[in-house]
Amino acid sequence: MSKVSITFPDNSRNEFEQGTTPSEVASSISNSLRKKAIAALFNEKVISLDTPLQEPGLLHILTFNDSKGKEVFWHSSAHLMAQAIKRLYPEAQLGIGPPINDGFYYDIDLEHKFSPEDLEKIESEMAKIVDENLAISGSVMDKEDALKFFKNKNEYYKIELIEELNEVITAYSQGEFTDLCRGPHVTSTGVLGKNFKLLSLAGAYWRGNEHNKQLQRIYGTNYPDKKDLKEHLFRIEEAKKRDHRKLGKELELFMFAENVGSGIPIWLPKGTIIREQLIKYMQDAQVKSGYQQVVTPHIGKKELYVKSGHYEKYGSDSFKPINTPREGEEFLLKPMNCPHHCEIYKFKPRSYRDLPLRIAEFGTVYRYEQSGELNGLTRVRGFTQDDAHIFCRPDQIKKEFIDVIDLVFMVFKKLGFEKFTAQISLRDQHDRSKYIGSDENWERAENDIIEAAKEKGLNTITEYGEAAFYGPKLDFIVQDALGRPWQLGTIQVDYNLPERFELEYIGSDGQKHRPVMIHRAPFGSIERFFAILTEHCAGNFPLWLAPQQIILLPIADRHEKYTEEVSKRLKDSGLRVDIDNRNEKIGYKIREAEVQKIPYMVIIGDKEVEENSLSVRHKGEGDLGKLKLKDFIDRLASELQNS
Amino acid sequence: MSKVSITFPDNSRNEFEQGTTPSEVASSISNSLRKKAIAALFNEKVISLDTPLQEPGLLHILTFNDSKGKEVFWHSSAHLMAQAIKRLYPEAQLGIGPPINDGFYYDIDLEHKFSPEDLEKIESEMAKIVDENLAISGSVMDKEDALKFFKNKNEYYKIELIEELNEVITAYSQGEFTDLCRGPHVTSTGVLGKNFKLLSLAGAYWRGNEHNKQLQRIYGTNYPDKKDLKEHLFRIEEAKKRDHRKLGKELELFMFAENVGSGIPIWLPKGTIIREQLIKYMQDAQVKSGYQQVVTPHIGKKELYVKSGHYEKYGSDSFKPINTPREGEEFLLKPMNCPHHCEIYKFKPRSYRDLPLRIAEFGTVYRYEQSGELNGLTRVRGFTQDDAHIFCRPDQIKKEFIDVIDLVFMVFKKLGFEKFTAQISLRDQHDRSKYIGSDENWERAENDIIEAAKEKGLNTITEYGEAAFYGPKLDFIVQDALGRPWQLGTIQVDYNLPERFELEYIGSDGQKHRPVMIHRAPFGSIERFFAILTEHCAGNFPLWLAPQQIILLPIADRHEKYTEEVSKRLKDSGLRVDIDNRNEKIGYKIREAEVQKIPYMVIIGDKEVEENSLSVRHKGEGDLGKLKLKDFIDRLASELQNS
Repeated sequence: MSKVSITFPDNSRNEFEQGTTPSEVASSISNSLRKKAIAALFNEKVISLDTPLQEPGLLHILTFNDSKGKEVFWHSSAHLMAQAIKRLYPEAQLGIGPPINDGFYYDIDLEHKFSPEDLEKIESEMAKIVDENLAISGSVMDKEDALKFFKNKNEYYKIELIEELNEVITAYSQGEFTDLCRGPHVTSTGVLGKNFKLLSLAGAYWRGNEHNKQLQRIYGTNYPDKKDLKEHLFRIEEAKKRDHRKLGKELELFMFAENVGSGIPIWLPKGTIIREQLIKYMQDAQVKSGYQQVVTPHIGKKELYVKSGHYEKYGSDSFKPINTPREGEEFLLKPMNCPHHCEIYKFKPRSYRDLPLRIAEFGTVYRYEQSGELNGLTRVRGFTQDDAHIFCRPDQIKKEFIDVIDLVFMVFKKLGFEKFTAQISLRDQHDRSKYIGSDENWERAENDIIEAAKEKGLNTITEYGEAAFYGPKLDFIVQDALGRPWQLGTIQVDYNLPERFELEYIGSDGQKHRPVMIHRAPFGSIERFFAILTEHCAGNFPLWLAPQQIILLPIADRHEKYTEEVSKRLKDSGLRVDIDNRNEKIGYKIREAEVQKIPYMVIIGDKEVEENSLSVRHKGEGDLGKLKLKDFIDRLASELQNS
Repeated sequence: MSKVSITFPDNSRNEFEQGTTPSEVASSISNSLRKKAIAALFNEKVISLDTPLQEPGLLHILTFNDSKGKEVFWHSSAHLMAQAIKRLYPEAQLGIGPPINDGFYYDIDLEHKFSPEDLEKIESEMAKIVDENLAISGSVMDKEDALKFFKNKNEYYKIELIEELNEVITAYSQGEFTDLCRGPHVTSTGVLGKNFKLLSLAGAYWRGNEHNKQLQRIYGTNYPDKKDLKEHLFRIEEAKKRDHRKLGKELELFMFAENVGSGIPIWLPKGTIIREQLIKYMQDAQVKSGYQQVVTPHIGKKELYVKSGHYEKYGSDSFKPINTPREGEEFLLKPMNCPHHCEIYKFKPRSYRDLPLRIAEFGTVYRYEQSGELNGLTRVRGFTQDDAHIFCRPDQIKKEFIDVIDLVFMVFKKLGFEKFTAQISLRDQHDRSKYIGSDENWERAENDIIEAAKEKGLNTITEYGEAAFYGPKLDFIVQDALGRPWQLGTIQVDYNLPERFELEYIGSDGQKHRPVMIHRAPFGSIERFFAILTEHCAGNFPLWLAPQQIILLPIADRHEKYTEEVSKRLKDSGLRVDIDNRNEKIGYKIREAEVQKIPYMVIIGDKEVEENSLSVRHKGEGDLGKLKLKDFIDRLASELQNS
């Protein structure tokens, strides 16, 4: 029998008989690897563990620790769920059932509306199928057979899918259940175990198109390890509690109004305080770093965006042009601040000595999003960027990147985002035809970014081909308190807009040169950042951001005079303080202040008035005992200083 | 002969022979009145001094001190200019020639383009006509005769005007010159004197319609007293120097860009500093006065503005609705913030204890203006209001008005507007059908406003019939350094929007009640206020507003290190400081700093470095001699504190 040479990820190599399966290879390495194996990556292609290896190649046994391993595990789990559903509801028609970020879903067309009790029934049936340990195997049909097969099963959504395929059709079967599917899958239903959970129900239009029928989508997840499932369920519960949409309403931070429009947020007084504090913080930091603040309008003539290229990009799917009483005159809601900042650059001739010119603006932009895409403050139709554009000479790029990285570090530290990485997006290594700007400039800028990131000790990954056509960039990805990744903060080189706007400066050689433009926004969008921050700190904003920093709770009417004096002193010290003098029991007021997540609660009764003191309770630390007003103010001042 | 009884403004009365002229009446009072008399107001109608008085009535001899006297004087001056033009350019055709705010103009259709030299020629001819002292007299023609008459003179613009008239036509003649005119006029050209001045030339479309021919407009003015003309010319020169459009460019405060659109301002870095300081000042004052800040979007669904009534008001002449990819969905650029604030009121149920609720926003609104109406920052298409809406109970109106008046006083004082009056606009005393809201509420609110103004010692005039249909209001009118009046600051009661938005609160009686809304904006529009302030202080902004507070001028390179240290110390004290270390002579740098109107200039040379001191020059006070850095910082701190 002939042998095939198999190479492993650690570059070790071994000979196996031709036709050996990855499963057998895993067994040959260790029993525990065999047990953990889900699928395999062979010469860059994901295959099932029972696929015979016919040629030499690079083999990577995939476990649940590999993202591709997770995908197969959850994809097979989706089939498991579908099989259970078809057993319980034979008239159900299946849509699609892919793996997703944290599990899987399947879209089902069924007259009966699923209830939470139904989900439990389906789970029981899934457990039975796991016990049955049915072998899972793929097969190939020609298109005609496939159509006939699924017509027999009344699976009309599958038929629609098959009709659009012109390849050979593959299907996967387990016991009586067969699904149209590219695969691969685990080798049998027993592998999937019983640490699965069906999580929620949602409506979903067939193929995401609102003109199609709405199907029932069932979300689920599954883990090889029970502990991981538990943790996942805990994170889901925690995420629900921290949901910024929920907290936004409870803490009265922001709202949406039907008449104003979906995805167009209104900031309520308390949310506005936080927003303004964030802006002020960034503004002060930027002034110190040599930025100049500007204010530009929320509209511009269509010609401006035709020139910048944004009309081409956002024109057809976005807010349409605004006509005026004057014929032919058209304005656009601004989707980006950059064109306005280019106009500011052109206000007067610039010299090499004037650069870098750092133009900053908290600019509100409007971009239309499909209503199905909208989500609280994380995906909106109007948002404010902490935008800035640095116009600089090519030899200044590295220094500017370093300074912006410092600014981003400072922001992350200030707001308690301790875990983050960065992605450097460079040109495609092979095809360079699609990029604007000279090769020399690109090389320099790419090296500058790489070096700047290195000098700042950034933990980076480099992606080739991920650069925009107009320049390379650096993106930050933070992990929030629940371990979820969020892309925040971009620094982006741009050779395109300076060209389109014909920006120039007079160099030291007396000649005209073209400046480079760097786009950067540490928060990105204030709305989205605010949402992430709210969930990260579960609404327990740090003292400097808390809309109400202190609440004074007088026990009876006779304590109000003293309370007023205390309030005035605190306000004079620049603190945000309220008095709850409603005619309610003190216990009720305390509970309410806790719900409102106010950092400091001060109870004032006979003793406090008598002793000229305050009984202070800190949200995190609990009872701080009796404090003199001055000591309390000192404590707050020092907390604010050190935060 | 029969007598007529004539009553004078001081209520004295006298008998005159029927047919006596106002001129004769004036003579009978005093010779000086006769000399100053320009026309007369007889039973509320302006008549010429030689009109025989045939019936009893109230007679007011008009002099140049009366606004109606000025009108007649300048109207006659326009005829004087037209006569001179027709003598010099017989082929000239006349458009219209009315009196205006500070003089008069006439629109002329003439192939020859007027030059400044031509204006001098016209002035000489006018002087001749004054010397000729031609009698001015009115006559009446029927329409046909009038058409024939002006056709003979080739005055085709007059013909167009006559064709639209169906009354009896009046014309006024002086010597060979006759003009279509309602009159009245002074009695002879000699009365007009020679203190006139033709000021400027401009293009003006016939009847203000850009589809018509553009005529040449000549502006002029004329004063009985030479001193007044001189003062006026001085004010014009001064106004030119202070023109915020000129200063805006020179001081780099703001700009307009063709691609962004006319009337849509872009705030440059230095202007932004002033703008932000103004906003911060108002914000702080408002927080202290119990306002809550919000942020609302710049668009809203069309339905919102249909509901508020703004679509009806702004819809057809303004920016048109914004369509989206979703059929039937339409948004509007917000012309006002109030509808959004009503939605915030509706965020949750409100109780009588929650009122007054004061919602404030620096909200940018967009309203289309005809391009001919646009003027620097005083008339724009996008502007930011220091807007707030107070939702209160009817019994809280007076207190709220008093507080807002206090806020306005504080703003005017802070910004050096010492002279101001106020106008109270009430309902029409006779016709009350057009007003919304109960009689009882109106009466109460009107009295509250009157009393609040009285209690605050405001100098007011009361105008009946000037209230909006939705409520009475109080407007402030300030006089700037050149004596020009500007309407600033409005406080406006509104019964309409609470009705349209069905706003409610639960009263102490447990029943639902409708709150009253008060609109108020001390600055009005920040753009317009900024323009007025710039002209008021001629660009010499007070220290707290100055974008550059201090400029450091090192004499040579060897002084730069010390200069840097000084700069750092000043910046650490929160001051806005720049260093001019360009390779230029110190005299040049000083001149430039003066042009930039920077309050403090600090010169640093060998002596200063040696003595560890600063040579300080204040823009207004001149040389302050040598100061220690600490003393300089103290001086600045105290100036900022006391401004």
